[in-house]
Amino acid sequence: VSAPLTIALDAMGGDQAPQMVLEGANIARKRFPQVRYIVFGDEQRIRPLLDRSAGLAGLCTVRHTPDAVASSDKPSVALRTGRRSSMRLAIDSVDAGEAAGIVSAGNTGALMAMSKIVLRTVPGIDRPAIASYFPTLRGESVMLDLGANVVCDADNLVQFAVMGEVFARTVFGVSQPSIGLLNVGSEEQKGHEEVRAAAAQLRGTDLPIRFHGFVEGDDITAGTVDVVVTDGFTGNIALKTAEGTAKLYSEFLRGAFRSSLVARVGYLFARNALNKVRKRTDPRRYNGAVFLGLNGVVVKSHGGTDALGFANAIGVAVDMAVNDFNNRIRDEIAHLHASTAAKPQAVTG
Amino acid sequence: VSAPLTIALDAMGGDQAPQMVLEGANIARKRFPQVRYIVFGDEQRIRPLLDRSAGLAGLCTVRHTPDAVASSDKPSVALRTGRRSSMRLAIDSVDAGEAAGIVSAGNTGALMAMSKIVLRTVPGIDRPAIASYFPTLRGESVMLDLGANVVCDADNLVQFAVMGEVFARTVFGVSQPSIGLLNVGSEEQKGHEEVRAAAAQLRGTDLPIRFHGFVEGDDITAGTVDVVVTDGFTGNIALKTAEGTAKLYSEFLRGAFRSSLVARVGYLFARNALNKVRKRTDPRRYNGAVFLGLNGVVVKSHGGTDALGFANAIGVAVDMAVNDFNNRIRDEIAHLHASTAAKPQAVTG
Repeated sequence: VSAPLTIALDAMGGDQAPQMVLEGANIARKRFPQVRYIVFGDEQRIRPLLDRSAGLAGLCTVRHTPDAVASSDKPSVALRTGRRSSMRLAIDSVDAGEAAGIVSAGNTGALMAMSKIVLRTVPGIDRPAIASYFPTLRGESVMLDLGANVVCDADNLVQFAVMGEVFARTVFGVSQPSIGLLNVGSEEQKGHEEVRAAAAQLRGTDLPIRFHGFVEGDDITAGTVDVVVTDGFTGNIALKTAEGTAKLYSEFLRGAFRSSLVARVGYLFARNALNKVRKRTDPRRYNGAVFLGLNGVVVKSHGGTDALGFANAIGVAVDMAVNDFNNRIRDEIAHLHASTAAKPQAVTG
Repeated sequence: VSAPLTIALDAMGGDQAPQMVLEGANIARKRFPQVRYIVFGDEQRIRPLLDRSAGLAGLCTVRHTPDAVASSDKPSVALRTGRRSSMRLAIDSVDAGEAAGIVSAGNTGALMAMSKIVLRTVPGIDRPAIASYFPTLRGESVMLDLGANVVCDADNLVQFAVMGEVFARTVFGVSQPSIGLLNVGSEEQKGHEEVRAAAAQLRGTDLPIRFHGFVEGDDITAGTVDVVVTDGFTGNIALKTAEGTAKLYSEFLRGAFRSSLVARVGYLFARNALNKVRKRTDPRRYNGAVFLGLNGVVVKSHGGTDALGFANAIGVAVDMAVNDFNNRIRDEIAHLHASTAAKPQAVTG
């Protein structure tokens, strides 16, 4: 854990960039003293920020980049015109082996498109997926895909399951993570063709995977399984629905505590306890969605996050690099293909 | 509103049936004094419950039914073998014009299958949808489909939009409800083919519909639109994800208030305010999912609800019958078809 490690930072992505990015790195350096940073972006804006912290400046190399991808750019446009952007050059540095991973709070679609082109997918993975972890009643779980692939077939879902399993095992340290396929019911005949075919494959596989079966929307936060697998359309909507519901609940609560003098007094007494709940559900704590299935560690921070959230996203990249996530994925996928080649009936499920 | 109205009750559906059903009717009769009930089920179990309330007994006609649909029955099995079940005979009474609507807390799949066979869909509606309303930061909204149709094409989604609009207008009393299509982003090119084609149709329609465009998962509880339209797979998962997240939040809160003596004191002061939040987010308050698009009012209560929740489901059926929901749907759908016949390019959008 103490070997030196280099992370590439896209300093120009995110609503509060570059300030938020460098302040985030300044928080992260205290947690991960072994990490060095290559900072990609507008040097004129980055230098004054580094001048504020000699400790951070000593860990950073700045690479000036003339362009930046805008959050409104279409991925195809960013691909064509963004070859000298901070995002692209940061990804290139991972491909070149200069950095073990990249963290960006910029345009998600552009980051995915560029990462696919530059880093390419791991052999045996047809499409990368976006994964994130979140709080549950039983600790933390991970869900994927959260929006990279709007339409998925059964093979994609099975590959997501394998990647999610490796993520939970190597990054969370769960020894035998359980996998659930998100569906509208737990019975075998429920759902559309793709999820049923994926379930048949996962039941039939020789991989040492603990397949729980189908899970429903309320199982996500119940923590019924360690890994929730779904297509990018459903996963994105489930994630944002959960975020919206948490916000609704906390707004209702805020209103209630302001509704009377007695309630205000109650708030004063309960404040410490309520702050604990706030910390436990703080979106910044779960910031840092990972792009799984690429030859390199790519972490997407929320664009609207602050320095603390960005520091957590850096932490996710460090965890993945330290735990050698990508090599483990490669091994596991090779097993999957050996397994399905030996049992072709499982594939057509 | 004071004209007499008859509602058919499936007394045998739900975890606590028939007691919960009759206690629910007993709560509902005070709110809706004009309503009479036909109670379908095991007379030997129903009579003693009615004997407890002379007021309720005077409003009820009991129809003994020898069978009941089990919650584990497959819809196809229930259809074949459940012709003398309380659920089926209650639906038949709506078809015969004896009752204005039916409320059941039984097997959802069986209720939908039987309702489709007996009541049939409104002309111009290809498939019925399940709709429910829920709390938001801006009042209440309605979402559909919540699980009747796992796979939907663009025409289905457009029909759901029209039905949801009429529901919000007639049952909520919103004068010009806004409609949103659930998607993974608000830009026109986002999402899969079906949602994009449905959006094109809704933008092109001559109907007096206020189409907002795409909405995302967090817009559901933000109350961005009055009607959220989606396929039954996504809608079911979004609904259950929201329920699960609310539960997670309230469990975290409960834990926090128990975490110290000071927090317990705070709870005592804040109790009234917290109870207000609990009431506002109480699932029983939003109990009663409606099956839209059928020639008859069908309301599905949650199977695990109590008498208060069941009374609310009865209230939804009463609202729909009183507001003549089904005739308004019929008119609106006729307009939709006149509109798309005149503008065929909108259909292929």
